[in-house]
Amino acid sequence: MEKFIEISILYDFYGELLSEKQKLIVDYYYNNNFSLGEIAEKVSISRQGVYDSLKRSEELLHEYDSKLKLMDKYQINQELISNALDKLSNHIKNQGMDTDREILLDVENDLKKTLKQL
Amino acid sequence: MEKFIEISILYDFYGELLSEKQKLIVDYYYNNNFSLGEIAEKVSISRQGVYDSLKRSEELLHEYDSKLKLMDKYQINQELISNALDKLSNHIKNQGMDTDREILLDVENDLKKTLKQL
Repeated sequence: MEKFIEISILYDFYGELLSEKQKLIVDYYYNNNFSLGEIAEKVSISRQGVYDSLKRSEELLHEYDSKLKLMDKYQINQELISNALDKLSNHIKNQGMDTDREILLDVENDLKKTLKQL
Repeated sequence: MEKFIEISILYDFYGELLSEKQKLIVDYYYNNNFSLGEIAEKVSISRQGVYDSLKRSEELLHEYDSKLKLMDKYQINQELISNALDKLSNHIKNQGMDTDREILLDVENDLKKTLKQL
């Protein structure tokens, strides 16, 4: 995954665990694409200070994810539910032509799997 | 919620964010029902030390939950998916008698809601 996107996503999951100042700097850099110099001016610390804060925040976000694995869980659940939803939507569209219960049983199964590992 | 159950659940969500020693003590106390004295002997610290560690861990677990709100999210998702699953299972059981698409559309809707706030 591209680093900018990766940190943005990690920030969505774990940003609340950073300090207010760390959050602000990550948000400026990764979500608003400000340069280190621009951020330095905005938060009144040195450019090096901004850089160090970003490195530390990135480390922390990765550390939280290695412990809680919310990104993995999200992706697995997202895939299982999307999958169930697709089958269900197709079944609804094609109802009348294909009324066997196989698709519905399959969707039921996907949902059960999802529930188990929410 | 009863405190023992509450801390056990919080520990399932955020236990990995505690130190190894904190985890061990919470696990002994909340999951295995050891007394403070028994734990003190097992981990070779004072009874007061065990008590302080437990209080600190409880604070930390509550703090993490107030920031990440994983318990709330879990409960909402759990309810939405169980709900969808119930309707689907009932529909599968009653298929043939009731083939209108209303229930399926309802389930589709529940799943869409779940996806949005995973």
